[in-house]
Amino acid sequence: MGAFSEDELISGIRRVLSGDSPGVVLGIGDDAAVVETGPGRLVLTTDILVEGVHFARREVSATDLGHKAITVNLSDIAAMAASPRFATVSLALSDDVELPWVVELYGGMRDACSEHAVSIVGGDLSAAGQIAISVTVAGEVAEGREIRRAGAIPGERIVVTGALGAAAGGLRLSRAHPSKTGGLVGTDWGRELLRAQARPTARIGEAQTLARAGATAMIDVSDGFARDLWRLCAESGVGARIELAKLPVSEWLAPLAEELGEDPVDLALHGGEDYELIATLDEKGVERAAAELRERFAVPLTQVGEIIDHGLEAADAHGRVTELQPKGWDHFG
Amino acid sequence: MGAFSEDELISGIRRVLSGDSPGVVLGIGDDAAVVETGPGRLVLTTDILVEGVHFARREVSATDLGHKAITVNLSDIAAMAASPRFATVSLALSDDVELPWVVELYGGMRDACSEHAVSIVGGDLSAAGQIAISVTVAGEVAEGREIRRAGAIPGERIVVTGALGAAAGGLRLSRAHPSKTGGLVGTDWGRELLRAQARPTARIGEAQTLARAGATAMIDVSDGFARDLWRLCAESGVGARIELAKLPVSEWLAPLAEELGEDPVDLALHGGEDYELIATLDEKGVERAAAELRERFAVPLTQVGEIIDHGLEAADAHGRVTELQPKGWDHFG
Repeated sequence: MGAFSEDELISGIRRVLSGDSPGVVLGIGDDAAVVETGPGRLVLTTDILVEGVHFARREVSATDLGHKAITVNLSDIAAMAASPRFATVSLALSDDVELPWVVELYGGMRDACSEHAVSIVGGDLSAAGQIAISVTVAGEVAEGREIRRAGAIPGERIVVTGALGAAAGGLRLSRAHPSKTGGLVGTDWGRELLRAQARPTARIGEAQTLARAGATAMIDVSDGFARDLWRLCAESGVGARIELAKLPVSEWLAPLAEELGEDPVDLALHGGEDYELIATLDEKGVERAAAELRERFAVPLTQVGEIIDHGLEAADAHGRVTELQPKGWDHFG
Repeated sequence: MGAFSEDELISGIRRVLSGDSPGVVLGIGDDAAVVETGPGRLVLTTDILVEGVHFARREVSATDLGHKAITVNLSDIAAMAASPRFATVSLALSDDVELPWVVELYGGMRDACSEHAVSIVGGDLSAAGQIAISVTVAGEVAEGREIRRAGAIPGERIVVTGALGAAAGGLRLSRAHPSKTGGLVGTDWGRELLRAQARPTARIGEAQTLARAGATAMIDVSDGFARDLWRLCAESGVGARIELAKLPVSEWLAPLAEELGEDPVDLALHGGEDYELIATLDEKGVERAAAELRERFAVPLTQVGEIIDHGLEAADAHGRVTELQPKGWDHFG
């Protein structure tokens, strides 16, 4: 990394991140950051993105990558029904990275943070053979108000926010051979799919709405709907039956299916990176949450099935029930 | 990483980390951890260790590496005069890593945490081309009680805890050709140097003693005494004059100097990874802090110089003053 020194890099980053930072007593530049939190409990999460595993530089802009590195963590905070406040960033850079790329990366991180009044308060930098971005986010939640994966009870409804499968569709589209996709990435639906992949949204306000409506368990969809639902069930000690016909499959997947032969339902079940929320509620809670999500966030809430005693089952439109495999993203797969 | 699945890895880690965890409401296994903090302010820091940059697997045991990955962060918390409480760990693993290595790594992390009642509450795992370990630590400090890098005033004394240069000496010893060091690593002094490198100590209690004694600025020595002193001065807007004869050079460096021709004073000034504390105090504060550090921690405190208006100067035993270059570890150097 002969192109710039560590001090140049740090001052570039500090410039990008300068500005109002609510609650930040002491930000980047000392041994550690000092921040003010409220009287509730602290919520902590961390996620690492590694080049060649989670992203390829030729497929994603530095801005989008930075935005996503923050958003995946905000989504974890959201899944606890907590409020994100502060972030730290560890960044390992290979020697072919240029300073503007790093500045854009931090610009994307700043944007994702600004959307939710989160401040980047610290970090560390290292050389490396490949880029790795590890973000930790600290958030707050009132005592006893966090929604865990454990807590779902047989008979409760399973709901999911937004639509599923678009991010996986975007990834398929961006990785398909150009001869197949040359015209497709410029279509409305192609752009929507690519955008879903590049710019996921953390459902922070939506999660708090679900919590107020009485959600008993919640998880965000990072590794695929089926796999993350299975995790929620495992922690709750219950099972789930999904009605496949009710799955909110992204509308933008139909043209992709036609062009590339991908199965929309399969992408919605196993695709991953949707960052939607799966929650369990009683029937009244579903109605209340759906109304508020529609009104306040213009986000649909879909009831997709029911918590059962054990097993993970999928019922098709004809009522045929089959076992649902919790396949999906495995970081060592 | 065909040798084990992500789920096997996580359950192995959870076994290592099980046990009492003060303040942990919800630990590893959910979307985020939930912890209880006191009424003070939150302190956050993060550090990343990358294979081939910060460590080589043939030179360090997994246990020592894990211990160090935590300790470097605890040292940053110490340098604020804060108390560490909770840690998260992002771990990127190359496919030649075996499960026992990871379990030992976490064992070392657990040991370093246990020494200071810190709990590892969350993490993330990824495949990668090289190992990277990013740790974030959250700590607490009473409002307004943190000691920053900024705050030193001309006329104040500069002190440093413990001894300097041993970690750098250990690194030189471990990297020297075996034909030179075959018999040396087994000597008392050789073992002490290697241990200083492999098992640094975070001066947490010592930092709080320095704070109570009226420290106005503080930093931990991670990248070399001269470089970190220079950082403290830069943030404080002051300079420093060091008396080289007063530097607490590690006693174990004398035999190394004889055998390998390394200059002990140079290692003490620029070696790095000592994780001792540099602080600035008035004369009375120095006496008070030195007495308490000796009594409670059996750690020496040495007055090595004085804060001046500007510049970084070193005076030798004959009173000759030269400019002190803040060279030392640059992560992109």
